[in-house]
Amino acid sequence: MTDVDLAFDEQEYIPAVAQDADSGDVLMLAYVTEEALRKTRETGEAHYYSRSRDELWHKGGTSGHTQAVKEVRVDCDGDALLYIVDQTGGACHTGYESCFHRTVDGETVGEQVFDPDDVY
Amino acid sequence: MTDVDLAFDEQEYIPAVAQDADSGDVLMLAYVTEEALRKTRETGEAHYYSRSRDELWHKGGTSGHTQAVKEVRVDCDGDALLYIVDQTGGACHTGYESCFHRTVDGETVGEQVFDPDDVY
Repeated sequence: MTDVDLAFDEQEYIPAVAQDADSGDVLMLAYVTEEALRKTRETGEAHYYSRSRDELWHKGGTSGHTQAVKEVRVDCDGDALLYIVDQTGGACHTGYESCFHRTVDGETVGEQVFDPDDVY
Repeated sequence: MTDVDLAFDEQEYIPAVAQDADSGDVLMLAYVTEEALRKTRETGEAHYYSRSRDELWHKGGTSGHTQAVKEVRVDCDGDALLYIVDQTGGACHTGYESCFHRTVDGETVGEQVFDPDDVY
């Protein structure tokens, strides 16, 4: 499916980091199956695998906050992916642009870009 | 240890993405144990857990290509970390600045910043 060998883990997942193409901000980390990666490449919109719902996950399918994937990169040992995306709305269900909007000390560092009550 | 609850997986790992503070480039994805995160915060230099060597890994301990950690962020559900770092040399053992220096189609997109034969 790809020209580079990918090392899916024993659960057939590979972690994928989404990065905003314009701002360079790291938006989220989620997991991808072979099917999710294939759908991403076929449709040009980011797909992941929801481990909590145990199903293929078209990011933004409910909220409209889709990610147009401009490039998919792979790391040196083939066990992690990087989606370079144009993010519609915000990546995080909390309304923040990025899921990484807090430090480990609990300080908020990110920007809220929508009101989740309006979306979900 | 942190003010935010972290969700380590059943192997007591949590994935950590390293991002260059200046360029915004995503440098690598590796795994962190509670001890690795504590060492990172105590020393200010990125520590991970090497799953292949099964030991605590001080990034750059051998190569000198350390990562000075300016901030540690956590995602919305507490199961992924983001290290914002000043990278000395390159993050990748292949000599590239980033481990994500290829597309899944095998095209090289990153920049080689050192000759690995000089370092390892």
